[in-house]
Formats: sequence, structure tokens, C-alpha cells
Amino acid sequence: MGGSAAAGKSVDGGGRAAPRVPVPEARPFLDTFRANLKETFFPDDPFRAVVRERGFARRAAAALRYFFPFLEWAPAYRLGTFKSDLIAGITIASLAIPQGISYAKLANLPPILGLYSSFVPPLVYAMMGSSKDLAVGTVAVASLLIASMLGAEVSATENPALYLHLAFTATFFAGVIQASLGILRLGFIVDFLSHAAIVGFMGGAATVVCLQQLKGMLGLEHFTTSTDLVSVMRSVFSQTHQWRWESVVLGCGFLFFLLVTRFFSKRQPRFFWVSAAAPLTSVILGSLLVYFTHAENHGVQIIGNLKKGLNPISVTNLQFTPPYMMLALKTGLITGVIALAEGIAVGRSFAMFKNYHIDGNKEMIAIGTMNILGSFTSCYLTTGPFSRSAVNYNAGCKTAMSNVIMSLAVMVTLLFLTPLFHYTPLVVLSAIIMSAMLGLIDFPAAVHLWHVDKVDFCVCAGAYLGVVFGSVEMGLVVAVAISVLRVLLFVARPRTTVLGNVPDTNIYRRMDQYTTARTVPGVLVLRVDSPIYFANSGYLRERFTRWIDEDDERTSAKGETGVQYVVLDMGAVGSIDTSGTSMLDELKKTLDRRGIQIVLANPGSEIMKKLESSKVLELIGHEWIFPTVGEAVAECDFVLHSHKPGMVADGASHENMV
Amino acid sequence: MGGSAAAGKSVDGGGRAAPRVPVPEARPFLDTFRANLKETFFPDDPFRAVVRERGFARRAAAALRYFFPFLEWAPAYRLGTFKSDLIAGITIASLAIPQGISYAKLANLPPILGLYSSFVPPLVYAMMGSSKDLAVGTVAVASLLIASMLGAEVSATENPALYLHLAFTATFFAGVIQASLGILRLGFIVDFLSHAAIVGFMGGAATVVCLQQLKGMLGLEHFTTSTDLVSVMRSVFSQTHQWRWESVVLGCGFLFFLLVTRFFSKRQPRFFWVSAAAPLTSVILGSLLVYFTHAENHGVQIIGNLKKGLNPISVTNLQFTPPYMMLALKTGLITGVIALAEGIAVGRSFAMFKNYHIDGNKEMIAIGTMNILGSFTSCYLTTGPFSRSAVNYNAGCKTAMSNVIMSLAVMVTLLFLTPLFHYTPLVVLSAIIMSAMLGLIDFPAAVHLWHVDKVDFCVCAGAYLGVVFGSVEMGLVVAVAISVLRVLLFVARPRTTVLGNVPDTNIYRRMDQYTTARTVPGVLVLRVDSPIYFANSGYLRERFTRWIDEDDERTSAKGETGVQYVVLDMGAVGSIDTSGTSMLDELKKTLDRRGIQIVLANPGSEIMKKLESSKVLELIGHEWIFPTVGEAVAECDFVLHSHKPGMVADGASHENMV
Repeated sequence: MGGSAAAGKSVDGGGRAAPRVPVPEARPFLDTFRANLKETFFPDDPFRAVVRERGFARRAAAALRYFFPFLEWAPAYRLGTFKSDLIAGITIASLAIPQGISYAKLANLPPILGLYSSFVPPLVYAMMGSSKDLAVGTVAVASLLIASMLGAEVSATENPALYLHLAFTATFFAGVIQASLGILRLGFIVDFLSHAAIVGFMGGAATVVCLQQLKGMLGLEHFTTSTDLVSVMRSVFSQTHQWRWESVVLGCGFLFFLLVTRFFSKRQPRFFWVSAAAPLTSVILGSLLVYFTHAENHGVQIIGNLKKGLNPISVTNLQFTPPYMMLALKTGLITGVIALAEGIAVGRSFAMFKNYHIDGNKEMIAIGTMNILGSFTSCYLTTGPFSRSAVNYNAGCKTAMSNVIMSLAVMVTLLFLTPLFHYTPLVVLSAIIMSAMLGLIDFPAAVHLWHVDKVDFCVCAGAYLGVVFGSVEMGLVVAVAISVLRVLLFVARPRTTVLGNVPDTNIYRRMDQYTTARTVPGVLVLRVDSPIYFANSGYLRERFTRWIDEDDERTSAKGETGVQYVVLDMGAVGSIDTSGTSMLDELKKTLDRRGIQIVLANPGSEIMKKLESSKVLELIGHEWIFPTVGEAVAECDFVLHSHKPGMVADGASHENMV
Repeated sequence: MGGSAAAGKSVDGGGRAAPRVPVPEARPFLDTFRANLKETFFPDDPFRAVVRERGFARRAAAALRYFFPFLEWAPAYRLGTFKSDLIAGITIASLAIPQGISYAKLANLPPILGLYSSFVPPLVYAMMGSSKDLAVGTVAVASLLIASMLGAEVSATENPALYLHLAFTATFFAGVIQASLGILRLGFIVDFLSHAAIVGFMGGAATVVCLQQLKGMLGLEHFTTSTDLVSVMRSVFSQTHQWRWESVVLGCGFLFFLLVTRFFSKRQPRFFWVSAAAPLTSVILGSLLVYFTHAENHGVQIIGNLKKGLNPISVTNLQFTPPYMMLALKTGLITGVIALAEGIAVGRSFAMFKNYHIDGNKEMIAIGTMNILGSFTSCYLTTGPFSRSAVNYNAGCKTAMSNVIMSLAVMVTLLFLTPLFHYTPLVVLSAIIMSAMLGLIDFPAAVHLWHVDKVDFCVCAGAYLGVVFGSVEMGLVVAVAISVLRVLLFVARPRTTVLGNVPDTNIYRRMDQYTTARTVPGVLVLRVDSPIYFANSGYLRERFTRWIDEDDERTSAKGETGVQYVVLDMGAVGSIDTSGTSMLDELKKTLDRRGIQIVLANPGSEIMKKLESSKVLELIGHEWIFPTVGEAVAECDFVLHSHKPGMVADGASHENMV
């Protein structure tokens, strides 16, 4: 068993090479504090490139390159790259124009805003963003959220100017919040929206958005402002006599067309452009159809006039006065965080495919700035939507230049082509939204969650049901609450296991996992799998006692000797607080009364530091702390078999034992 | 290095005894669910004693004994035990009577309620409680909380009847909540009030209670209803002309007397009764003084008439109608949980001293029932105060019979002795409260927290400052928020460390802790100290990459070979969710592209299960998973030195390396 066991004193000078567990030197508080702060907020050491440079000018240039990544790739930009970006840019523009108009309608905003929002923000992102694949644009979920949150207090039909101004203000706040999160290095807050939560949330939002499209598809004039399933169904079925068959036929036809092209492109990735061009094709076909059949007089609603010209300045429209500012702030906060989560996740996914690195906090600053500047130029909330970025990636984009191309294409549209959209039927826009949304309902992902992790499935289902039956915010709250509860429960009820010796080794492993592992008579080896904190110290104290009682019962039934040593494997205890040290203190005293010696194995440096400063180390005795479980058990075994009586505690203690 | 390293295939049939890491058999979902539920809510297996019995009658008797522990000790009750309990009971009664009156005044309730509350609840607790040392009574913090929470909406002077009824209703709700927490096995919620939080919270509450006593000490008629330091100081110094020197002199005199006796008893534990009897002595002396000097006409306020007779029934006074019910519910919830935390903590501490076991959930049911029945009989919120229980313990109580004795002594007082309290000066009550409160400010504990754990100190300071400058509720919220944030931050930013080989062993330990540990060329061993969850999977992915980059930089500067194997020590990873498995999936793919092989060491059974169901096990390959770091590194080393080229990934990968 790993060499002969030495007596319970110092073995430093002996023949064994294994060191005893060292207590780290005390470091000044401020040093530790600074190191922790750095690891919490600057884990990726973002300014390495800047600090490395010498001289002010070189550092300033490096800092500029840090905040404006295009300075890095633009000088080396080649014609070959441009060709790829041109194709990708035009492809995403053909998707951006109809989608932009559709999502603006979803947000109850004038359709032209969808085009404005595809003009300025992509230019800003192209300069500041570090992703090569992200295609900037508005997204359905955020659009719906804006409609439902602002719409709850201000009617878009009765007071369109105020509603519009509040949408700009919310976008401004969303941008400020996004940029601040990046500047304050709080990007990890977005991590608390777990993958499972996002799957459920996106699925729920897609369901809700599809339900909203029933208005357009059925050609209804009046519709509920609520988003939950029950309200929508009641609204739809209370006015069955208002359904327009022309609208239904047109809508279903286009939806079928869009779904078929998407299915085809998925099967044949080479023909990605088929599904990418399908929305624009639908818009053109739909508009021509309406123009020639005058369907607008037969219950098919159309977009109507779109203003020509570029984005008007809207900075003077921002509302910073009390009655509505809080509403805009709240809307900005929620939509901003959700949009950010999508943008960051999309950027990261594609960066992983192409094996380059994305700095989350820098991305937040880029997305935030693009929304702040957007809110000054009549744009509403934009981010990096998954569908558009995927098309961009498939179309072979090489740099953020594809965003510039898209932006220029939209500019041309704004300057010259808006009258062409006059006859575009709304039902086509609904079909475009629905076909995009159906792709967001990721049923296989939910099945995967169920197979791998039931709690994650609960998070996902909670988010989905919360969104569909409650509201988008409720879905978010449910998902985050379950996720956080899981973390807390992990700490509050940590797993404790008995370790056994793997035969012919000095390795100790969990007995429920390694069936060959055997216990050592008289020694109980326990392992804790979480930090020892206030939330579990009471539980752990009772659980340890129960393990000992159970072992005593078992051995006394067999007539064997009971537990005389409890070895705690601290290898997986990452941290300990004062409740934890008090618990060990109490445990030591309780076990002393029962004549049981407590032994610690493999505590980490932080644990050793805490044990020393709380005097628990002194109480247990440094000689009872070992770097490995093997050595700890060898020592116990040695003492147990050499001078058995009177070795433990004070000799009288054996009387208390079962 | 622990025997010769075998090739990266199966070694089960070979000469080595070490088993590969087994994947646990899939258990039916419901089984796992039930086991988890049991461990979460019934970790202490409370019904063991009941289930063991055979036959309905015996089981019913055991269940009865479970819920009414006095059935267990009463039959064996002896005269010798009774003598001890009698002395202890009379001692705590002499403390309970003046304290009861004082705290009722603090709660702005009629003083007689303090006596009522020391009559019924102790009898209930004696039957149902499992602690032998807990002395039941009202507590200062809860009294103050009732005054400030109810007082915010209903004035105790303008509408005394409503205020009184709301106090009963709040007590009723507190009891219901306490008992429900016990019945629903949610006792662990109380654990979230960490020791550090309670130290800060109690200190803050004691400070606030002392500040409130300035009213009585200075003989002021009008006083602020707020409890924060700023309001109280403003109130005190805005009416300096109202200060009564008679009151100040009397108050300071008695406070000095009480503090001196306490100091003496602390030094000489045999004379515990000196400090225990001091409050009653003060009341008697004070009353006599007022009676003979007619000080009540010179600015010394007195209690006045106290009704004779036992508790009137108050069950019909409970308010369950809308306008005020929510207020009572809120007050009951907060005061109930705080009182519960104190009662449970006190019970546990003394049980530890005497080495018997307390069932937290059962205690909650007992305390809850005592408050429900109390609210029916004109009592307000009671629990097990620390000071009174300590006196009980020091006086040598043996069973809960001491509570019965105290209750009988209070009954005699109620029936015959209340007129004696007519001339008791209020300033004496203030002195009694202040002297009790000063003992709750535990400055050395705060210093200890600072030395051992800075975060715990922040929790403590946050709770203290929150209570003193904000309100009692704010202090609670601050303390719980910091505590929970710490747990979340532990998971969000787990410590990752590089492990090195301890010379002449096959043990791997943290290189920052064990200075003799050495790295193995070409192999980077990393260790994570927390579960891999959504909250840290993004961080960990980046952190792992940074470790690898740093190691590559270091080795390439020295001209050594870069990292070719990354061994992740999963020993301390207690759990993993789907975000974690996706992270490993991505990491594997990223490292493959760089030509680096990922190896896992010592994953637990839950981790193996998740890795298998998420197919990550298949991706990494079961042959790259080892039970110990030593074996993993030995394997890497063996492959590295035998057939070096083309072994890793697909051979082409070396090109990508630095």
C-alpha cells in the first residue's frame, strides 16, 4: 500500500517522497482580491495585445485596433475575398428586405423601419464587430416583445407617434445596457441563460409569433394585444365569420412554397440560395399577383405606401421624461439582454466552426453601439439573427464586408425601390415570418435534453410553457429561476459517497461506481462533491453522522469492529466558508466524544488556508491531514494494528462506541 | 510510473488490476427521481422508528411518540430530574416575567401579552419539542419587527384593537408557515441564513433595538416609528429639551447594575443565577423606588394597571379579511422565518453540547403549532431565545419539564401578582432590553469572519449595515443576496489549476500548492473545482484554451514540444449539465483541429452517465478515459515516446501546431 506507513508525526525527513499537505503562504489581502477580481471580470486578458506594445502611439494604435477590428482586416483586403463577400451580401440583402418589413409589422412599427434598421446598424457592426459571419438585422422575438411590452401601455394605432418614439427610446436603452454590460465586463450574466433555457424560450417565442401571424393569415382586422395561447385562440375563434378565404389560400400557398424551398436547401446545402431567395421571390410573386388581380379589394391587405429616402434623424425623438421613460427602460432592458444573448450565441457558434476567437465583452460593446447609433437614425433593436447569419455563412462570406454590401443594397432599395412594395400583400409577410419561426422550434434538441439531463429539460419546458401560456418575460423568469435553483440545490444537497480501496492499488474510488472497491475495516472513507458552504454545512454534519451510524450498525451486526477513523476526501471540495469550518470543528468534537478520529485527505490550498485561519487545522492536528486518501488510510491502518488501545483521543472514548 | 503503460485500447483483460472507468447501468427514471427526492427532503430518514415497528397499534404508538416526544421521557421521569427542572424552571420564570413585559412594550403591545405568551406556548412546546434545553418565550428582534411592519400601516396608539388583532393574526400565519415548512420538509430554507448573516443580522437588530430604548431611557413621549439610525438620531436630538434627567439617571443605574451582574456571572459560571435574577431584582427595586418616592409624578413613566387572570381566548379576533390580511401574512412570514432560524439554531447548539440529536423539521412543526395555539390564546410570536435557553441550560435543566415549571410560575403571577407591577418604571424595562441586546453584538465573531473568510465578512457587514441604516428586511435581503451570489459566483468562475507530477510517485497535485510537482513534457493536466454547468461552460472553454495557449507560448519560447495531450481531471466535477456536455463536445472538436488529444481522468458515475447519453463519450473515445490522472498521463507518455508521428488525430494535425 504505497510503501510502509509512518507514524502520525512528521514524515518530511523520512524515506517517503510524498510531501505532507502544505499550507500556502499568506498573501496580502489586496493581492488576492485583485487576482480574484481579474479572474472574475477579465478572465480572457483582453488588453494583452495593447499592453505588449511599447510607446504611446503604438499602444493607441493597438487599442484602436482592439475596438475597431476592421482596421486589422481592411488593409489586407483582397479582390478574391470581396467577390465572396459580394455574393453573401446580396444574398442576405434579398432575405433582409422582406424579413425587415415583416418584423417591423410584428413590432407594430411602420414597415419602412425594417429597412432603415438594415441600413445603419450593419455599417456600425462592420467596423466594430469581431465576428466574420454575423449578419445584422432585426429579430422576430425582440420585435414581438417590443409590441407586447410597449403595447400594454401605449396603443400603436391610437398614438403612433408616441409609440414610435418609445420604440427608439427602448432601442437606445437596450444599446446603452448592452454596451455597459460589455464595458463593465459583466458579459457572464448572459451565460445564465443556459442553452436549455434558450431552446425552450426560442421555441416558445416562435410558437407565440406564429400564433400572432394568424391575424395576417386569416385576414382579420381586430386582434388581441395579448400573446398567450389562450387569448389568441379566443380571439381567433370568436370571429370565425371574419375569416377571409382569399387570404388563407394565398398565405398557405406561400407558406408551403417557403417550407418546400427550405427543406430542399437543407437536403442540398449547395443550393442554399434557393431558400435564401425564396422570401424575396414570394414578395415579388405576391405583389404581382395582387397588382394584376386587384386582390386588395377582395380582403387581401397590402403594405401600401412606403416613404422613399434614407433614414431620418430620430435623436430628438427620444423620450427621457418620466411618464414613459421607465416603460422604455424596462422594454430596453429585457429586449436588449435577449437580443444580446442571441447575437453572442450566434457569433460564438460560427467562430467555433471557422476556429477563430470572439471576445464576448467586445461583441457586447459593438452590438450596444450599433443600437445606440441606430436609435439616433430611426432604427429599432437589431442583433445578429441566427437564420440570416447562417445564410451569410453558407453563402461563403469571408469578412464583415458582407454586412456593408447588404447595407448598400438596402440603401439602393430605400432610395429607389420602395414604391415596388406598395402591392405586397401582408399575408406573404406572415408566411415569411411563420416559415422562419418554424425553424426555431427545435424539437430534437428538447428530446436530447430529456435523454441527457432531466433538469435541463425542465428548464426548457418551463421556458416554453411560460412563454406560450404566460408571457415572454414569465418564460424567462421561470427558466432562470429553475437554472439558479439547480445550482443552489447542487450546493445545498451535495452528494456524499463512501470510497473503497481498488484491490492491489492504493487508489480509493466510489463504491457505488467501482464495484470491485472494498472497504478497509475500522476506516470509513467519505467524499463530498461540492464546496462546503452555509447552505450545506448543516446537512453534511447530519449526513456524515448517518454514514457513521449506518456503518456501525452494519459492522456490529456482523460482530466486526466499528468505525474508528473517518477519512474525509476533500479533493472535490473547491471552497469552504466559515459555516463549513465551524461544521468541521463541531464534527471533530462530536466524533472525539464517540472515540472516532477524523482524518482529512487532499484538501486544496484554499481549504488549507481557511482551516488554518479558523484554527480547525490546529484542532484536528496537521499530522492527520494527508495528500492522498491512500496515505491517510495506510496511516490509520498502521495505528489500528500496532498500538490499538489508548491510541484514539484519550483512551476513555472507546466506552461510547457501539 | 505505476507499472508499464499499456496501449490505448482495452486493458481489462491485461495484467493490470486497475479497472477502466465504468459507466453505471441506466436506472429507471422514476427510481432516480425518487432517490433524489428522498435525499433532498428526507435526508435524515425521520420515520425509521415508525416503519420498523410491526402492526398498526405499535406503529401508531411510535408515530405518536415521534410527534409528541414527551411520551418518551415522561414515563421514566424521576424525582431527581424534577428537582433540577424545578430550579431551572423558577430561574427562567424570574427572567421571563420582566423580559416578557419589556418585549411586549417593544412590540407596542399591551405589557400583559408578554406574560400570556410565557404561559401557553411553553406548555405546547414541552409536549411536542425535542430539545431538552430550549426555553420558550418572546424575542426582541421579532417584537421590533412586528412593531415596525404592522406600525407602518396601523397605528398602535390610534387603533389599538386592530393593531392587537393583527398581531395575533401575524402570529397565526407565522405558526402556519413554520409548521408547513416542517411538514413539507423544507427546513433547509433556514440554512440559507448563514452563520455570518445571522451574526450581522443579530448585531444590527440589537443595535436598532438599543436605539429604540433611547425613548424609554430619555423619558421621551414622542418618538419616530422608523427604526433606522438616521431617523432615530434625528428624533432624539430634535427634542433635547424633552429629556428627563430622572429617567436618565434611573435607567443608567439599572443598566450598570445589569451589566455588572452579567459580567460577574460570565466570569463565574457557578453564579449564573446572579445575572438570571438581576432583571426581576431590578423590577422589584425600581417599583419600590417609584412607590416610595412617587417618581411617577416626576417624569418617570410606569407600566400602570395590568389585568388579573389567565389568557383570554383570541381565536375570534383573527383577521382574515382583505384590507389587512396581506399585511399580517407578510409580517407573519418574515417574523416567523427569523424566529424559526433562532429557535432551530439555539436548539441545535445545546443538543450538540449534550450530544443528542434534534430533528430540524420536527422542531419546526413544534414551534409552528405552539404559535398557532398561542395566537388562539392571546399570545404573540414566541420561539426559543438564546439568552433564556442559556440560563435554562446553566441552571441544570434536564427535560422540557422546566418549561412547564416556568409556565406554572407565570400562571401564578397572572392570577395573583399582576398588581405588583403597577409601579414598575418603563425605564427599567428599557435597561433590561438594552443589557440583553448588548450581549447579541458579537464583535469577536465579526473579527473572526474577517480573518477566515472575507466574503462571509461582507455578508455579515451587509446584514448589519442593511439593518442599521435601512430596515430589518433590507438587512435580510442584503445578507441572503450576497450569500447566494457567492454560491453562483463559485459556479460561474470555478478555479482551474494545472496539476504536476509529485516526484517519485504517480500522484498529480496542484502546482501552485505543491511546489515540488513537475509538469510532464507534452502533457497538460488541468483540473476543475466545480460542477460544469451552463453558468461556467463558456468561461471554462475559454479558460482551457488560454491554459493551452500559455503553455504553448512557454514551451515554444524554450524550443520544447508543445502540448499534445490535455488531461482533464474530472475528480472534483460533481455534476454536469447539457451546456457542459456541449462544451466538452466543442472542446474536443477544437482541440482535434489543433492536433491535441483530450483525455479525461476520474469522472464520477453521474458524469459518465451524462457523457454517454450525450454521445460525448463516443466522440472522445472510451479508451481516452482513465480512473486516475497517473494512468492517463502514463498512457499519453507511452504513446508520445513510442510511435510519435501520426498517432494524434489524423496525422495532418501537427501542421497547425506552434
